Amino acid sequence: MNRPLAAIILAAGKGTRMKSDLHKVLHPIAGRPMLLHLVAAVEALQPERTVVVTGAGRAQVEAAVSPLGIVTALQAEQLGTAHAVAQAEAALSGFVGDVLVLYGDVPLVTTATMQAMIDRLNAADAPAIVVLGFRPADAAAYGRIIASDGIIGKMVEYKDATDAERAVDLCNSGLMAVRSADLFALLARVGNDNAAGEYYLPDVVMLAAADGRPSAVIETAAAEVAGVNSRGELAAVEASWQATRRAQAMADGVTLIAPETVWFAHDTVIGRDVVIEPNVFFAPGVAVGDGATIHGFSHIEGAAIGAKAEVGPFARLRPGAVLGERSKVGNFVEMKKATLGIGAKASHLTYLGDAEVGAGANIGAGTITCNYDGFFKYKTVIGEGAFIGSNSALVAPVTIGAGAIVGAGSVITADVAADALALGRGKQEARVGWAKRFRDAMTAKKATAKKS
Amino acid sequence: MNRPLAAIILAAGKGTRMKSDLHKVLHPIAGRPMLLHLVAAVEALQPERTVVVTGAGRAQVEAAVSPLGIVTALQAEQLGTAHAVAQAEAALSGFVGDVLVLYGDVPLVTTATMQAMIDRLNAADAPAIVVLGFRPADAAAYGRIIASDGIIGKMVEYKDATDAERAVDLCNSGLMAVRSADLFALLARVGNDNAAGEYYLPDVVMLAAADGRPSAVIETAAAEVAGVNSRGELAAVEASWQATRRAQAMADGVTLIAPETVWFAHDTVIGRDVVIEPNVFFAPGVAVGDGATIHGFSHIEGAAIGAKAEVGPFARLRPGAVLGERSKVGNFVEMKKATLGIGAKASHLTYLGDAEVGAGANIGAGTITCNYDGFFKYKTVIGEGAFIGSNSALVAPVTIGAGAIVGAGSVITADVAADALALGRGKQEARVGWAKRFRDAMTAKKATAKKS
Amino acid sequence: MNRPLAAIILAAGKGTRMKSDLHKVLHPIAGRPMLLHLVAAVEALQPERTVVVTGAGRAQVEAAVSPLGIVTALQAEQLGTAHAVAQAEAALSGFVGDVLVLYGDVPLVTTATMQAMIDRLNAADAPAIVVLGFRPADAAAYGRIIASDGIIGKMVEYKDATDAERAVDLCNSGLMAVRSADLFALLARVGNDNAAGEYYLPDVVMLAAADGRPSAVIETAAAEVAGVNSRGELAAVEASWQATRRAQAMADGVTLIAPETVWFAHDTVIGRDVVIEPNVFFAPGVAVGDGATIHGFSHIEGAAIGAKAEVGPFARLRPGAVLGERSKVGNFVEMKKATLGIGAKASHLTYLGDAEVGAGANIGAGTITCNYDGFFKYKTVIGEGAFIGSNSALVAPVTIGAGAIVGAGSVITADVAADALALGRGKQEARVGWAKRFRDAMTAKKATAKKS
Repeated sequence: MNRPLAAIILAAGKGTRMKSDLHKVLHPIAGRPMLLHLVAAVEALQPERTVVVTGAGRAQVEAAVSPLGIVTALQAEQLGTAHAVAQAEAALSGFVGDVLVLYGDVPLVTTATMQAMIDRLNAADAPAIVVLGFRPADAAAYGRIIASDGIIGKMVEYKDATDAERAVDLCNSGLMAVRSADLFALLARVGNDNAAGEYYLPDVVMLAAADGRPSAVIETAAAEVAGVNSRGELAAVEASWQATRRAQAMADGVTLIAPETVWFAHDTVIGRDVVIEPNVFFAPGVAVGDGATIHGFSHIEGAAIGAKAEVGPFARLRPGAVLGERSKVGNFVEMKKATLGIGAKASHLTYLGDAEVGAGANIGAGTITCNYDGFFKYKTVIGEGAFIGSNSALVAPVTIGAGAIVGAGSVITADVAADALALGRGKQEARVGWAKRFRDAMTAKKATAKKS
Repeated sequence: MNRPLAAIILAAGKGTRMKSDLHKVLHPIAGRPMLLHLVAAVEALQPERTVVVTGAGRAQVEAAVSPLGIVTALQAEQLGTAHAVAQAEAALSGFVGDVLVLYGDVPLVTTATMQAMIDRLNAADAPAIVVLGFRPADAAAYGRIIASDGIIGKMVEYKDATDAERAVDLCNSGLMAVRSADLFALLARVGNDNAAGEYYLPDVVMLAAADGRPSAVIETAAAEVAGVNSRGELAAVEASWQATRRAQAMADGVTLIAPETVWFAHDTVIGRDVVIEPNVFFAPGVAVGDGATIHGFSHIEGAAIGAKAEVGPFARLRPGAVLGERSKVGNFVEMKKATLGIGAKASHLTYLGDAEVGAGANIGAGTITCNYDGFFKYKTVIGEGAFIGSNSALVAPVTIGAGAIVGAGSVITADVAADALALGRGKQEARVGWAKRFRDAMTAKKATAKKS
Repeated sequence: MNRPLAAIILAAGKGTRMKSDLHKVLHPIAGRPMLLHLVAAVEALQPERTVVVTGAGRAQVEAAVSPLGIVTALQAEQLGTAHAVAQAEAALSGFVGDVLVLYGDVPLVTTATMQAMIDRLNAADAPAIVVLGFRPADAAAYGRIIASDGIIGKMVEYKDATDAERAVDLCNSGLMAVRSADLFALLARVGNDNAAGEYYLPDVVMLAAADGRPSAVIETAAAEVAGVNSRGELAAVEASWQATRRAQAMADGVTLIAPETVWFAHDTVIGRDVVIEPNVFFAPGVAVGDGATIHGFSHIEGAAIGAKAEVGPFARLRPGAVLGERSKVGNFVEMKKATLGIGAKASHLTYLGDAEVGAGANIGAGTITCNYDGFFKYKTVIGEGAFIGSNSALVAPVTIGAGAIVGAGSVITADVAADALALGRGKQEARVGWAKRFRDAMTAKKATAKKS
């Protein structure tokens, strides 16, 4: 059982290198704003309060988090990370407990790591602060943590570090856990007597140490604390997330013929013995049942796919697509707010929008549900076992009864009774020899056109 | 000329980590069950007998191999690899010759390597057994082969190995070649006096050595003896197979703009000066003629594509698609059991199923062959040089004569004579001002709906 | 300001390993023949003359470069690189200035590097020749440059090099800059007294040195001087080009969710805050406006996409597609020589060819512009705010007036007035109970068929 918890998420950076009108922390990873990945990881620990410290673009961030009951605090001027954290003080007024300091642009930190930070803070030796460290492949210009047996001797910015300190590869991720009572007291003592004139958060560790209260470091993998400052880094973090998710899918019993070509969303759920061919894109909101096959070149969002169903290739499932067991959605088929009953099939070149298709029905190639009149959307209902002939247009609102047949090429504007045949098409007529005469005339015209 | 040959393929492992109802060795690589890759490599050496030793899931394996004249033997209990091989004894009763011991989940071993093992067995110094070794990047916990000049001094399990032995990077793949007369005699002497209480196959090497009959090791690349115990390893072996196949295609004169995005099947045949754009998936049964172009996002199975034909982007060719020379299948077009004559075109949004299209015919956008009535499939025949107007439905069985024209938007239910024009569509009528009145009414309705 | 400049591009190699009927230097990278990448880089320096030295396949090369005012020279026999360069002498007759020697199969050399070579040639110490060197990961069998402080002591072929020389990793790319007055004089002195009996270009460096005129080396990255001798190397150079271009796009403010799955052409222009989903292929001639979204599985060529427009997934834009601001082209939609006005939509299963669609118009699912009669192409004009019902065929030439509505499933062959409703479809009729009778009959027939 944790002590009361609060989280401060820093998101006040300008994100200039993103070259975007969208706030940096709202750029998505796996179909979800990166900030909300972090929020979800924190929420699993049931914090009493979460405060996002914002600067420019505060309104965008607020719109994203306020529905979740999360407040924002404003850092009007960019005076350094310690200054940023201090802006959360009012929002945490009256709160007593542990505080996690997180970064909106370091989105992949897991609940487990956050819990480990809290656990370390509350261990028997009660360190003043717990800092999350990592050992990158190239330590580059990261601030270093000089520690012994997990107790921090010194936090040092790269530019201030000696050669010996630079040789240490344990780097500071910036994340920390600290008691609320300590945090703001220490922040108040941080100065800005440095080249940049900024208030640096790591200084709180040295201030606590000066009080005789050492801090601790725990370590995590570099990939978990990867930060996003550019679209290149955004892509790298996306790739890292996807690689982890793909490996998990395979471990769970999903065949990915070419794992690197399947993109999952943050909430994709995939059953056992599902086979996914190369090049499948899952946007958010998708669940796939056991034994289903997703053929290549499928784009799937907001869809529930039943057990042993078959999707694609070239299927486009949009929100509200519900596929029954053993149903089939084939090539160049789009579904939106549409249900396909058990064993029903829409195999080719079809649009099913705002539709209900009964079990065992067969939707012929080129069928279109005409669900929109430019103003409102209307529903098409197709009964069990109905057979819709190819290239038909079903003008909604319309109901095709169970077991009914619609003749190929029909335009259906009125309901069709169960077990009836409906036709709605022109009568075929022939003009003997017309094609030859036309061809001769056109060939002549083309020859003339070329000459002139 | 080889001596008589038999192969024993071990496939009795439970494959628990696959988390699958499908037997591990039946999971496909390049569109073919991995076991059958191995069987194909063995068959090239014309073995007298091949025995697959199975445990759980025997029926699945039997169904896969019995059509090939390959028998299975049952290992009812999992008592170790030596015990597994021994189960093949009855099936090899009366056989005298060389025996290859292979593994169903080590599927990429080549015929050449198998031949090299046999050749080494039959070399002048006549080793008792030939073991196939490899040197992995990370030797990890593989059993080690301690050898000198290719003669094995010791086979040692990793857990029993000394530090010096562990420092040796020559590892045991498990594959071996041995004379039938030796194999079962040696197996009978293998004991299970070890921690796991299992009968280990490598022991036969040490037993032969104790008889004064040394064994030999030959080496192959680690990728060739990669094993599959999980879907992750399945994907890795698939990737390895594809990388080799792509390199071969390029060496043969095929342009792959992005080789890593083209997936071949085990039997794909591609001509010279074929250009394949990024993202093309070949399922089994495809041959592509010289000079053809396969545009991106194409999914091709069981199709014969003529020289200089053009396919895709977004083409879906299903079994029985036959494309003549210089024919063209464009975007959002599906073909199934359908022939396109020389120079014929189906450029957009078309379904050709159970159809024959003559040379030079032009199939307009949105054409659908209505080949199915819910019970039977029927054929559409389109003559040479015919022109099918866009958005037409051809209700099979139906024949469109050579040089005939079908007017756009027609539903054709009766045969069309050569050189005739056929029309089958409604007559256009107009209601002046109707659209404006409708728009005004709907706009008002929408406004009302919003208020309430 | 440069002195007068000429470029000699060697392209006489047979390219045997390409196994192609297309000349090696005409194989495309990013949708443009590799030779023309090089030509474009040279042209930025405004050379007075550019000469391509060709052998076999001269006609193909000439056809590619003569429209650019570039001449070819013939190397009838392959007698070595010095001999090849010498063939350009006549074409450069009368030219006085600096000469760049380039290679048609080393296509990624940048203008900046060429300029650096010229600058070095014209530096105060006036080296006789400037050679472009590089340090590959594996120096392998490349000729080595033995230099000190950038001044070349020796050029040595790998096979003639001592062990100490082979240990040097500075390799000769073959590219050089040299004054015209020196070039041909030195070439005339190159002999072929070597194992291959060939005239080697690097010999000119040693001949100049023997005259007391040292040469200089400048270095570039190995990737820039990567050569293409096989389709595998072609793919590697393509990958290198794409990686650079993708990084540039992201730096410019474009989101690439999976950068490795987006293929740019040499001339693709992408605005800021454009989001590109996985698997998008840009052929040449595409510009994408700010804030547009390109969904996955889109294939785009010769198209102008307006700001905040939405494309795909599964969109195919062909040359002449012009999408207005905030317009939308959805799944399984093809456009060719077609304009979509501001905010207009074609969301599904549509072909727009030779068409103009007004602002705000809505093109229903399954709409086909029937633009071709087998001989000529005709235009479809759709007015502002028009609504085309689903599954309609618009038989061009035809005009749909502003605000008009076309009923679903119509075949429109005559113009529709503004604000009118047009219908052109069969009348629906019903046959009660017919489907049941048909089903019963077919079920019986199927049962009979199975028995027999």
